[in-house]
Amino acid sequence: MKEKSKLKKFLSSFYLDKKLAKYDAEACIVWTQQLVKNKIIKKQQAEILIDALKKIKNKPEKIKKSEDIHFALEVTLEKMLKENKNLAGIIRTARSRNDLVVSDERMFIKEEIVLIVKLLKNVIESIINLSIKNIDVAMVGYTHLQPAQPVLFSHYILSFAWWFIRDIERFKDCYKRVDVSVLGSAAFAGSSFEVDRKEVARKLKFMEISQNSVDSVSDRDFIAEFIFCCATVMMHMSRIAEEFILWSSPNFGYIKLPKELTSGSSIMPQKQNPDYLELVRGKATKVYCDLLGILVLMKNLPLTYNRDMQEDKVYLFSSVEVVKDCLDIIRLVFDNVILNVEKMKNDLLKYDFILSTEIANFLVEKLNLSYKEAHRKVRQLIEYSLKVNKKLTELNYKDYQSVINISSNMFDELKDRLSIEKVGCRYKTFGGSSISEVKRQIKKLKSLLIKLC
Amino acid sequence: MKEKSKLKKFLSSFYLDKKLAKYDAEACIVWTQQLVKNKIIKKQQAEILIDALKKIKNKPEKIKKSEDIHFALEVTLEKMLKENKNLAGIIRTARSRNDLVVSDERMFIKEEIVLIVKLLKNVIESIINLSIKNIDVAMVGYTHLQPAQPVLFSHYILSFAWWFIRDIERFKDCYKRVDVSVLGSAAFAGSSFEVDRKEVARKLKFMEISQNSVDSVSDRDFIAEFIFCCATVMMHMSRIAEEFILWSSPNFGYIKLPKELTSGSSIMPQKQNPDYLELVRGKATKVYCDLLGILVLMKNLPLTYNRDMQEDKVYLFSSVEVVKDCLDIIRLVFDNVILNVEKMKNDLLKYDFILSTEIANFLVEKLNLSYKEAHRKVRQLIEYSLKVNKKLTELNYKDYQSVINISSNMFDELKDRLSIEKVGCRYKTFGGSSISEVKRQIKKLKSLLIKLC
Amino acid sequence: MKEKSKLKKFLSSFYLDKKLAKYDAEACIVWTQQLVKNKIIKKQQAEILIDALKKIKNKPEKIKKSEDIHFALEVTLEKMLKENKNLAGIIRTARSRNDLVVSDERMFIKEEIVLIVKLLKNVIESIINLSIKNIDVAMVGYTHLQPAQPVLFSHYILSFAWWFIRDIERFKDCYKRVDVSVLGSAAFAGSSFEVDRKEVARKLKFMEISQNSVDSVSDRDFIAEFIFCCATVMMHMSRIAEEFILWSSPNFGYIKLPKELTSGSSIMPQKQNPDYLELVRGKATKVYCDLLGILVLMKNLPLTYNRDMQEDKVYLFSSVEVVKDCLDIIRLVFDNVILNVEKMKNDLLKYDFILSTEIANFLVEKLNLSYKEAHRKVRQLIEYSLKVNKKLTELNYKDYQSVINISSNMFDELKDRLSIEKVGCRYKTFGGSSISEVKRQIKKLKSLLIKLC
Amino acid sequence: MKEKSKLKKFLSSFYLDKKLAKYDAEACIVWTQQLVKNKIIKKQQAEILIDALKKIKNKPEKIKKSEDIHFALEVTLEKMLKENKNLAGIIRTARSRNDLVVSDERMFIKEEIVLIVKLLKNVIESIINLSIKNIDVAMVGYTHLQPAQPVLFSHYILSFAWWFIRDIERFKDCYKRVDVSVLGSAAFAGSSFEVDRKEVARKLKFMEISQNSVDSVSDRDFIAEFIFCCATVMMHMSRIAEEFILWSSPNFGYIKLPKELTSGSSIMPQKQNPDYLELVRGKATKVYCDLLGILVLMKNLPLTYNRDMQEDKVYLFSSVEVVKDCLDIIRLVFDNVILNVEKMKNDLLKYDFILSTEIANFLVEKLNLSYKEAHRKVRQLIEYSLKVNKKLTELNYKDYQSVINISSNMFDELKDRLSIEKVGCRYKTFGGSSISEVKRQIKKLKSLLIKLC
Repeated sequence: MKEKSKLKKFLSSFYLDKKLAKYDAEACIVWTQQLVKNKIIKKQQAEILIDALKKIKNKPEKIKKSEDIHFALEVTLEKMLKENKNLAGIIRTARSRNDLVVSDERMFIKEEIVLIVKLLKNVIESIINLSIKNIDVAMVGYTHLQPAQPVLFSHYILSFAWWFIRDIERFKDCYKRVDVSVLGSAAFAGSSFEVDRKEVARKLKFMEISQNSVDSVSDRDFIAEFIFCCATVMMHMSRIAEEFILWSSPNFGYIKLPKELTSGSSIMPQKQNPDYLELVRGKATKVYCDLLGILVLMKNLPLTYNRDMQEDKVYLFSSVEVVKDCLDIIRLVFDNVILNVEKMKNDLLKYDFILSTEIANFLVEKLNLSYKEAHRKVRQLIEYSLKVNKKLTELNYKDYQSVINISSNMFDELKDRLSIEKVGCRYKTFGGSSISEVKRQIKKLKSLLIKLC
Repeated sequence: MKEKSKLKKFLSSFYLDKKLAKYDAEACIVWTQQLVKNKIIKKQQAEILIDALKKIKNKPEKIKKSEDIHFALEVTLEKMLKENKNLAGIIRTARSRNDLVVSDERMFIKEEIVLIVKLLKNVIESIINLSIKNIDVAMVGYTHLQPAQPVLFSHYILSFAWWFIRDIERFKDCYKRVDVSVLGSAAFAGSSFEVDRKEVARKLKFMEISQNSVDSVSDRDFIAEFIFCCATVMMHMSRIAEEFILWSSPNFGYIKLPKELTSGSSIMPQKQNPDYLELVRGKATKVYCDLLGILVLMKNLPLTYNRDMQEDKVYLFSSVEVVKDCLDIIRLVFDNVILNVEKMKNDLLKYDFILSTEIANFLVEKLNLSYKEAHRKVRQLIEYSLKVNKKLTELNYKDYQSVINISSNMFDELKDRLSIEKVGCRYKTFGGSSISEVKRQIKKLKSLLIKLC
Repeated sequence: MKEKSKLKKFLSSFYLDKKLAKYDAEACIVWTQQLVKNKIIKKQQAEILIDALKKIKNKPEKIKKSEDIHFALEVTLEKMLKENKNLAGIIRTARSRNDLVVSDERMFIKEEIVLIVKLLKNVIESIINLSIKNIDVAMVGYTHLQPAQPVLFSHYILSFAWWFIRDIERFKDCYKRVDVSVLGSAAFAGSSFEVDRKEVARKLKFMEISQNSVDSVSDRDFIAEFIFCCATVMMHMSRIAEEFILWSSPNFGYIKLPKELTSGSSIMPQKQNPDYLELVRGKATKVYCDLLGILVLMKNLPLTYNRDMQEDKVYLFSSVEVVKDCLDIIRLVFDNVILNVEKMKNDLLKYDFILSTEIANFLVEKLNLSYKEAHRKVRQLIEYSLKVNKKLTELNYKDYQSVINISSNMFDELKDRLSIEKVGCRYKTFGGSSISEVKRQIKKLKSLLIKLC
Repeated sequence: MKEKSKLKKFLSSFYLDKKLAKYDAEACIVWTQQLVKNKIIKKQQAEILIDALKKIKNKPEKIKKSEDIHFALEVTLEKMLKENKNLAGIIRTARSRNDLVVSDERMFIKEEIVLIVKLLKNVIESIINLSIKNIDVAMVGYTHLQPAQPVLFSHYILSFAWWFIRDIERFKDCYKRVDVSVLGSAAFAGSSFEVDRKEVARKLKFMEISQNSVDSVSDRDFIAEFIFCCATVMMHMSRIAEEFILWSSPNFGYIKLPKELTSGSSIMPQKQNPDYLELVRGKATKVYCDLLGILVLMKNLPLTYNRDMQEDKVYLFSSVEVVKDCLDIIRLVFDNVILNVEKMKNDLLKYDFILSTEIANFLVEKLNLSYKEAHRKVRQLIEYSLKVNKKLTELNYKDYQSVINISSNMFDELKDRLSIEKVGCRYKTFGGSSISEVKRQIKKLKSLLIKLC
């Protein structure tokens, strides 16, 4: 059969798993120490081996290319050890690539979770800062992209912070299930050598140890869970991106992105497009695909190890990269976005029918109507206002009387209450749109960040 | 415009969310109690209303069809209350379908998690029982569907138990994030009425209360996380199904399914096919799609509420049903599967080259070879055995000598060690394939079940 | 083993495949005719049987429930035939549920493609009508949701028509591969009876006949292809929905949806939300999931038939329903949407920097600049206009001179060309935004509709 | 704002779209020729420019890195042209990156379809060869992984050939929709320059020209369709991989893979695992994800161009690479797989209950039973054989008589018919398992290959 190099390339995972080099070296160091205890290798020999492994760990980029990172490390060791090259073959004892790769992946994910949580924390802090700086700015709140009710900008964007708090919580729950040592499970059955797996786990800084060797090498749910955590972060960022893309369109015009976070056109000289946010939005797709990928990959797979599982790293590494890159961008957006408070105010006045709920609430309170009746009355009022071509806040007492039977005192009280910029601050329920609630949330968020990160 | 009924049908979610009726009624009861406190409704009126709501809660199937469950409940109330029908319109106060539907969904998921965890526990117990009954049965363990090493059947299937333990842990972590009351968040901004959301939460038996009203109605990550938990359960079951379908094929023949768990053919009279397991395997696909569905649905959605989100229930309800049905089937399989221990034993003997690792271990131990060298030697031994057309266990001392330089004493010791049925019990590492480790695992699993369920 | 009814329900596909009843009956009629030819059944017996089958075909809702539609039909026949009930068992000859279900599905899809193509045609005609009615209306064209260039509304929406034309073409290509008779492939190997599969195919109105019996029952790519065709239609509709949701937001305000295509709020009396379009957008997700579903379901499946494949109908039926419902809605939107031409015009004037490309083109033409240089000059002009707080069309000759060295004649010529409403009609390239090109497109579309439908 | 290089990297698509360099250069050459006609550029200038572009086209690897391939090409031109660097800026005229990138992608896909169809053809030819070499080998055919009926190996594997024939047809249908020139659509509205798009199309070897400029730059359904075609190929290959992995497991043992198509274990010396096939199976997942990716990416996107669409190439390039690599592997498998005809024969005899259908057919023919009755009789016969512990073919006339009332002549005739190796050749229906039908199929396949490729 010809085509050897093509075949070799097809099988190789080195282009992927070289990313795991330092973890692989670390695992091999601890493993060698264990083999000394079991007298598989002599202390002096182990020292030579460990010395070489440490060098590799510190310069993983020097590893020779091979079928995969594990063989690559072995080959590199052989080259380094020269006359002692036989030592390299010792570390295979009582161990398989099956348990080694899972060990590497778990060490990798643990580090990445710490990094991602840090980035999430940064984003939350940026949101809090933006919220504090604009704590009393009111804007139109939308449902169905239709003006709905006035709302505090600060309250609105704090909702994103809560999304990311939950994302952190999820990553931390996931971490518990990743932080489990599998080394010593060997091919899948364990080994007839006496290996102290607990000591190995402790030295590799794993909190737990896997209970079943078959499970250890066969399952990849810890990767799926990690990617799922990334996917919800991306879902959240895709929505923030969408919102900010809308708001930076001049038709909304509530925000302006700094030039550094926009990009021009080769044909249209006027353009400053929100390309960064569009890419964040688009890249959410990728992590969704990665989640699907790991799940579909594992579906129907008989135990224990099958080579299909080599592809797990395709999805794992992609997710990690995308989520970290995008978190950086989103933080920069929150740090640098410029608010157009005047446009926000203008739109509040322009779409003053968003006060309808407030009027209905007032009618319930004062006239003892059921909310359904009050709702109907206000609906009539709006139809009336459209007919006479007035805005809702322009309706006078007479206008009101043609629809609702209220006293002039009540009317005055209502008018007083309908100051559009203030309505958005008056949702006094717990967690509602009001300055005091925003302040409470910020305090709570800050204490959670200390607790979680 | 014609086609009214088509339009009505298209918009309606009643066919879906009627499943939430009892939760909707429950939420409305608590809400009405709250409105009494706020003097929106008088005590006597509230009693009439609550009385009707309780009737609905107990017979949710009597609800009149409407656009959605919330309107359906309102319409049903109006019918029931007759002359007091105006009371029905009161419960809308300070509340929106946006926060109500999330409340319903959260109550629903909480109940379903409890049920699913119970089913998972049942499956784990069935696995433990099957494991205990066959604690010392050895079989061929496979990697890449090629015979690899001997392994205890009991150890092998316990790996599934650990999968489901982690699934339970995930559901329980998910539960914390579902167990959050959002009622009182209204459309998205909260309300200008004084509603005691904490009391509402307590009465609805929620542990936590949402901190931000915009977040409360806009995000669906709790559904995505729940479906993800279902998806990993299905991934796990699809693999068990695959394994058991293989094993029940006469070419493996390690197990036989009871007739009740098979199905025949309309054309082939001899057939007893593992249709149930195939359906479990196939249905994993559906829950994967549901996970993708909820994530794609929410991607790019601007805040706060959009009608797209109505479709969240399509994915939620499908997942719940599939995962529960399949857990039932898988439990029945573990409870009723019949082992063919003789075939397991025959295959162990037939594929005795699975002792290779053990021989290599022996050479490492006795001849002080590196594992790599030992591996090479055993490879030569296998090639030799193929050449002389002997099985590995049939090789005599002379055969060995033509490849490896070992003493006859050593050879005797090795032969002694190669009792194929015992090798699978001798992987004495923690979590390895040995009877003592299986017993330890079972003890640990039982204590975890008590702790987790 | 207890739980019989649960098991029965789990296995049953009748809730799904009863939809195939009429095709199943039709196939059985033709099959019975074939069995007469083979003397498996006598002519008089066949007549009795066919008579009963025809009754079933005309009233498929009368079929008795059973494990699946094929058994259900058999059971129903037995009931109908009473003393001749044995005849019912004859139609199983030389045939299996494996080839029968594929036959049913293919007949079903063929009919559905015809229906969907009709709906697509209707939508295209509605787009054309809307385009004709507003042939000369100019509006702001966007890239990245930022105003980009003026464009004709009619031209813009005709792009949707081309999307649907390609969708029709895809369905028609798919149809060729669905229009293949597999009946007579039996379980998977064909049959030792002499069955004239070609005659069967002809009578069932199939154009082609499958060439390999194993392929006939094992593959489902025709379903995947059909769902893919549905998925692109949904992708297209999701984008139209998005566009129209944006345009109906008052911040854009380019269109207004008729009340019948909006829905209100239980809390906000002013609301008229584009719920129908949001559902179309949301439901695209479902068909994507269906596509994924059929592909994942079939992945890794060994031949020939496995029960997993029963789930193919879950995805098939869902797609068909969603795509048809949504096409109806989208057509209604095009038929009933109300344009706000004034707002379109106002925005054209407001965002007159969208003329930048036209100015750059002018500079290339007149000053012999490279486009890159012209682009830079216009960029400077825009910055100048922002500095002096003028709109682009308000800049006078002096303003221009501070940036670009043009003669006053040239300036006059340029000003003349920058009539914003006309620019959008002047893209005279083939397929560009101009009234003549719109007219050409409409003519072409109409001829394609005749050719394709 | 700091972090400039991070931002630059995030935005850049050069790492992806450099793959399009030669198409970009080609498009620019033709475009420059067009600009001469429009007198935007002088003939001598054009020659300089085209000369440089041709150099780039031939050595695309020399292109300077930039934000994307289009800017990279411009920058590279400027470097090459030195004092004439201004010429480089001319090719932007009347053209945008929006229409250029679609042109590049369409040229790329056209070439890739040709290559993939070639690879598909190779695989089909390899299947045909393997089929011819083993035309009369019978084996056990399975449904539900349970022995079902005897079947010809040659017939069985030809089913794969028909899968790939349909895949080719799909690619060819897709090609028609890719083979459409969009150049000259500019940003989305066309251009006010007189560009002869038809001439451009002809020179770029496009068969068709896009009819609407908005459609030209906004839609990516041609990419989705192409990836869908790749996905069905992968679905098909995943199933072949599954089948061959099963067959190469010694429990089936029907085939043996050559050493070059297997891989060993670091711990188990005996191993020769079907890693290549497992990777093919696993990589199907990736293309599924790519299909999902392009569809999700485009969902909900407002027109016309958004930067999200840059990510289309992520999915496109991945699909192309995976499908081509895997087709190579699968062809090598068909070319080099070694059949174990003896094991196939042994299993036929071992699982002789697969003759049941044949017996039932016989009873229908001779005893005038309905198939359902015959089916029931044979079921009884099987139960009888299990009771007396005989194989089905070992039953004598007396055994038969205890279940079925047949004459001894009939019994002899039946026994004669039940030669298990011959049954699989006797399914004489069109497309059934018989040598004559296999020969017919091969002839038909060969003529189709000539027609299609």
